[in-house]
Amino acid sequence: MTRLFNDPAAFADEALEGFAAAHRGWVRPVTGGVVRAVGTPSGQVAVVVGGGSGHYPAFSGLVGRGLAHGAAVGNVFASPSARQIRSVARSAHGGAGVLLMYGNYAGDVLHFGQAAERLAGDGIEARTFAVTDDISSAAPHESAKRRGIAGDLPVFKAAAAAAEEGLPLAEVLRVAEHANARTRSFGIAFSGCTLPGADHPLFTVPEARMAVGLGIHGEPGIGEEPLPTADEAARLMVGALLKELPEDVAAPAGQRAAVILNGLGSVKYEELFVVYRKVAELLADAGVDIVDPEVGELVTSFDMAGVSLTLTWLDDRLEQLWRAPADTPAYRKGAPAAQEPATEPAPVAEDTDDTRVPAATEQSRAAAATVLAALNALTDTVDTHADELGRIDAVAGDGDHGIGMRRGTTAALRAAVRAHDLGAGAGTVLVHAGDAWADRAGGTSGALWGTILRSLGTRLGDQDAPDAEAVARGVSDASDAVRRLGGAEVGDKTMVDVLVPFADALTEAAAAGDPLTEAWQRAAVTAEKAAAATAGLLPRKGRARPHAEKSLGTPDAGAHSLALITRAVHGVLPDHPLDQH
Amino acid sequence: MTRLFNDPAAFADEALEGFAAAHRGWVRPVTGGVVRAVGTPSGQVAVVVGGGSGHYPAFSGLVGRGLAHGAAVGNVFASPSARQIRSVARSAHGGAGVLLMYGNYAGDVLHFGQAAERLAGDGIEARTFAVTDDISSAAPHESAKRRGIAGDLPVFKAAAAAAEEGLPLAEVLRVAEHANARTRSFGIAFSGCTLPGADHPLFTVPEARMAVGLGIHGEPGIGEEPLPTADEAARLMVGALLKELPEDVAAPAGQRAAVILNGLGSVKYEELFVVYRKVAELLADAGVDIVDPEVGELVTSFDMAGVSLTLTWLDDRLEQLWRAPADTPAYRKGAPAAQEPATEPAPVAEDTDDTRVPAATEQSRAAAATVLAALNALTDTVDTHADELGRIDAVAGDGDHGIGMRRGTTAALRAAVRAHDLGAGAGTVLVHAGDAWADRAGGTSGALWGTILRSLGTRLGDQDAPDAEAVARGVSDASDAVRRLGGAEVGDKTMVDVLVPFADALTEAAAAGDPLTEAWQRAAVTAEKAAAATAGLLPRKGRARPHAEKSLGTPDAGAHSLALITRAVHGVLPDHPLDQH
Repeated sequence: MTRLFNDPAAFADEALEGFAAAHRGWVRPVTGGVVRAVGTPSGQVAVVVGGGSGHYPAFSGLVGRGLAHGAAVGNVFASPSARQIRSVARSAHGGAGVLLMYGNYAGDVLHFGQAAERLAGDGIEARTFAVTDDISSAAPHESAKRRGIAGDLPVFKAAAAAAEEGLPLAEVLRVAEHANARTRSFGIAFSGCTLPGADHPLFTVPEARMAVGLGIHGEPGIGEEPLPTADEAARLMVGALLKELPEDVAAPAGQRAAVILNGLGSVKYEELFVVYRKVAELLADAGVDIVDPEVGELVTSFDMAGVSLTLTWLDDRLEQLWRAPADTPAYRKGAPAAQEPATEPAPVAEDTDDTRVPAATEQSRAAAATVLAALNALTDTVDTHADELGRIDAVAGDGDHGIGMRRGTTAALRAAVRAHDLGAGAGTVLVHAGDAWADRAGGTSGALWGTILRSLGTRLGDQDAPDAEAVARGVSDASDAVRRLGGAEVGDKTMVDVLVPFADALTEAAAAGDPLTEAWQRAAVTAEKAAAATAGLLPRKGRARPHAEKSLGTPDAGAHSLALITRAVHGVLPDHPLDQH
Repeated sequence: MTRLFNDPAAFADEALEGFAAAHRGWVRPVTGGVVRAVGTPSGQVAVVVGGGSGHYPAFSGLVGRGLAHGAAVGNVFASPSARQIRSVARSAHGGAGVLLMYGNYAGDVLHFGQAAERLAGDGIEARTFAVTDDISSAAPHESAKRRGIAGDLPVFKAAAAAAEEGLPLAEVLRVAEHANARTRSFGIAFSGCTLPGADHPLFTVPEARMAVGLGIHGEPGIGEEPLPTADEAARLMVGALLKELPEDVAAPAGQRAAVILNGLGSVKYEELFVVYRKVAELLADAGVDIVDPEVGELVTSFDMAGVSLTLTWLDDRLEQLWRAPADTPAYRKGAPAAQEPATEPAPVAEDTDDTRVPAATEQSRAAAATVLAALNALTDTVDTHADELGRIDAVAGDGDHGIGMRRGTTAALRAAVRAHDLGAGAGTVLVHAGDAWADRAGGTSGALWGTILRSLGTRLGDQDAPDAEAVARGVSDASDAVRRLGGAEVGDKTMVDVLVPFADALTEAAAAGDPLTEAWQRAAVTAEKAAAATAGLLPRKGRARPHAEKSLGTPDAGAHSLALITRAVHGVLPDHPLDQH
């Protein structure tokens, strides 16, 4: 139970602020997260890690010499936005490129990927790497789909230690890949966690039961068993990890391994030590030599009760990197050499310059007014339906769809009003709105909606009067981008099930010569039918919750909200081309 | 909820074993606890800390360079025994004496005090120091009665840093006194904790309420209020601490302070950071300069939900000691100079040599058989009444009286049988039984019962046939020793309410010429009446639980068990002097 907070919506920001105040010797707050107080040494690759809040010491607690150069910190259980990541990466950049590292979750993959693209636009070479250590989240032949949990630490650390040696970006990335390929975790859980301000747990495990492989946000595990003794828990975890050795490790005997026994939140140190006692014994029995074990809370999930075991199978190189000194707020090893503060990095230019917009034609500025009206209608609709969207999402997701959509639409509308006041055209208004949505909503849907508005805006531009054909092309671009970024196809029970037929219907109607309002009306009907049809589909793999089978009969929340929005937007479209509004 | 354990009775030992296995670079396990892996530098005062298990990182996690030289670790929430403390202190001793440090709890005061006496007998100069930082546990004019909580850390650290400088024992003790005089804590709690194997919490706080000043074992606080926001919690704690400044601090403005925001177990890091954000702001507003703050879990209580704030008001000397480097499993600061391993300390002789006993006369050996029979009867009685004793204790205590008495009597009987087999006289059998009781039972009652048997045994010796007068003198010695050690007087609703009248009645009857059995019978009747009378008394201050008023009408568990035991022992006394048995 999370009890100590002020405004729940401000929790993540206030926690980061307090964290930074308590650790001035290590970190310096920047927009979107923290970077090392001493800066990144010039010519050193910067390792920037990140993810949602609620997992402390992941991610801010791992910033410091020998480990991360910066951490981008999102809202509670939500990925940081591309804008946050870009800001942290720019502050951490030491002139030799940036490696962005995170656990393998859809939202993080999206936002870090977008950030890397924008960093490239800034002239900063950036690569991304998602940790995939949780062996219960996908089968061995699909190991790239696995989630990242406490294996984040040894993989981050290996890459960071390589960066500290002065290796170039490509080499640091290779080290990350190698460490990840040799890192495996397996976890068990006894209870879920309660987020700040919530009156019930986000997910639960039945009393006196153990969920095997349950993810740290409640993602599905591989089974449920009676509560084990400490020794049985050790046996289960060690057994699972010894069964799936890395390809280049023939047998455990004679191997050396970094061992992390991680507490998820409310399992206490003493319990971890009782379990570790048996873990050490079992690994010794298997002939494994334990190197610098860590027993404690390293990747948590608020007050979730659970424990995971991570092994990184060491070769000489990985052992050297694992043993290298580190000095961060939450993780210290050896005595890293004192380091002169780097020169203060130049202040980071904000992603969106709030005071200037590109020049726009009169007709595009007129169309921007319609865009504003559409965003207003969209915001109203989400507001009205937020509880309903949350309820639908709670059946198979984490129930925060309504909250995220509200945060996103509110921010988008404000950014759009600001851009419009500055004289922006339709395209720029949409781009600003999309960036604000992605930045404030967080999570997967935030990234996808940000992409939708940005794609549409980019296609409309600030010169021409957007007609049905241009809008249809923009929506098709958005549809393509969402499929590319989200990796979902029609039939996966996601918003793609609605977006693709909507875009197709719009394109078809525009090609047939329908004016925008009629074309949109036709497409909106198609969207509503498609959203209703998602109720008959099984939820998409990998995103669903333990009891996801219940979601059969319930439409997908993302699909449903998209259909609602297409309908609401239709209500504000003029009866004539947008430029005549 | 503590879920991961094997045999709950083995929890503390197994946790210590796992802890030591995970931290080989820092600590080495010894009988009774751990010492620094590198040993104590020759000529350096050894600071040995300790207390019950369940408070990690207190106490084992604080052993290492710059902090403790050793930690004596008791059972769950029970003081380590004098034997354990003596063993750890002997292992940690570097030739310059030992400072024993602990939080101010009755059981710890007893056991550490006894250990210091025995260390003196070993030729090792030992001093004791109890930390008293919790301002809600007693009024300012009774500050010596206050409990020790998270203030343990800065007080231990100041003393240890002084020891590390090479100061002599008397100076190190003076530093501890000075640091303690300038250290104040104030805590709030939202829930109690559940011990390994228990099916309900040891104590509770009502839903959505906050217990102000609740002790970490459920000791009474100063009130109950609605759950605060994080900012309100910060305001409450800072306000309380700024109201009670040390005598030599006139006003907070311009002062420097070490600040510790401590989580008790299931309050998460992020929550602590949100609270710390406001704590830092309020202290800055008051003109206080924060030096090296610590935000995290430093003195816990299993999964108890709560938080405490500690301030140590620094002068130049204390600031120097607070800033000094330290390197322990749970607390690191700066980079302590690497230290050559000290020479391996000589193995510690066990307190009780199991293979030899002092020579005894035939008549004392005969009396030893009666002692055995009495211990057997005593063990049976405790066994039969364990649940009842637990229930009585649960009204105003922590409900573990039955469990502790069982552990103690079982160990005492086994030690007595062993000594008797080796040909020991009555005195030695009692001394061995007493030491084993104190060692295995832990807690206050273990120490007091150990003292009772030891006092009686010392008076009886191994030469004479114990008659009524000798037994009465022995019981009177025991009564005096218990009063001295426990600090209780008749009327405080403790076992002293029974022991004193029992000893007096026994002495009177013996003086009147009654043989032992009759004298004992008369005294046992007195004991039973005295035990029943405790039901009408208010519980003794400082030991009671939040809802202790309920205990009016319930006898004290310690008094009740003593009366039961005197009755049971009477049943095995011979009708003639013990030597003719």
